[in-house]
Amino acid sequence: MDCIIQVVGKKDSGKTSAIERAVKSLKDMGYSVTVLKHSHHSLDSPGKDTFRFKQAGADYVLFFGNDCGMFIPCDINIIYLLPTDILIIEGYKDLSLGQKIEIESPSQIESVSKRIVELGSLCNKLEGKFIVNGGNEVDISRDKMLKMLYKLLNFLNIKELSVRNS
Amino acid sequence: MDCIIQVVGKKDSGKTSAIERAVKSLKDMGYSVTVLKHSHHSLDSPGKDTFRFKQAGADYVLFFGNDCGMFIPCDINIIYLLPTDILIIEGYKDLSLGQKIEIESPSQIESVSKRIVELGSLCNKLEGKFIVNGGNEVDISRDKMLKMLYKLLNFLNIKELSVRNS
Repeated sequence: MDCIIQVVGKKDSGKTSAIERAVKSLKDMGYSVTVLKHSHHSLDSPGKDTFRFKQAGADYVLFFGNDCGMFIPCDINIIYLLPTDILIIEGYKDLSLGQKIEIESPSQIESVSKRIVELGSLCNKLEGKFIVNGGNEVDISRDKMLKMLYKLLNFLNIKELSVRNS
Repeated sequence: MDCIIQVVGKKDSGKTSAIERAVKSLKDMGYSVTVLKHSHHSLDSPGKDTFRFKQAGADYVLFFGNDCGMFIPCDINIIYLLPTDILIIEGYKDLSLGQKIEIESPSQIESVSKRIVELGSLCNKLEGKFIVNGGNEVDISRDKMLKMLYKLLNFLNIKELSVRNS
């Protein structure tokens, strides 16, 4: 269901470049693509204010400006929620999260990039339907929030539900 | 349902400091708290690799390291999805997203911070129940993903649904 491609390799082996090229090709093919970078470093503080809110204990800190970002608790489950057709992971070599490709040196950037695209092009575009509120049929391709709902229900293994007011 | 407190004021009026103090108090009171900062600036590029993935066209870019972050499309709807009891927004003065508090100068940091906490302490902690897969009752307080599901269903105005395989 979830189409995850994991690229592993030593430092400076060319992981980032291979993924970068593959993302461009997969986007051209109409896929929505997410990239996760695993690192042993910290995210640089992207501006004093968001850093201060994190330090004060906020569970989530969002930045909305010319571009947008969210500082989140480190929970790998987030990858099962994002409304994306293809997830490419750089690193996490000790975990088996998806189909693994290893890159050994920058001379393989071109071939590894092609291999990512090859695997990616086998991925299904996210689709599905809901029957909601006792009748209405809703196509999840209609919007991002519906796709997110679909992914979340799959993750939680829920096929049907009703909300009980409490 | 959603408890949103918006703090507006001119540059250097003390918005960040007032929110920072309020977050600490509300966390001590057991609330989960999210802060959104609205700015006319850009998020600094937090490291070359994530920036390269964004440039290559990735819809979402995640960074998982000692701390975690996600670079997301700028869609304000995300605020209705986060599994949080209280959302505090700094800025967005032209939008009415929640209860608005204005701060005029740093001399008001203390009083504005108290006012945020006062409003926040009226907020309900996120709770609710689902009946799933034809019988099981599930309490959303059990985990973050269930809370996210609850918020998402509220946002989409869905009271019951079933997934149709397609």
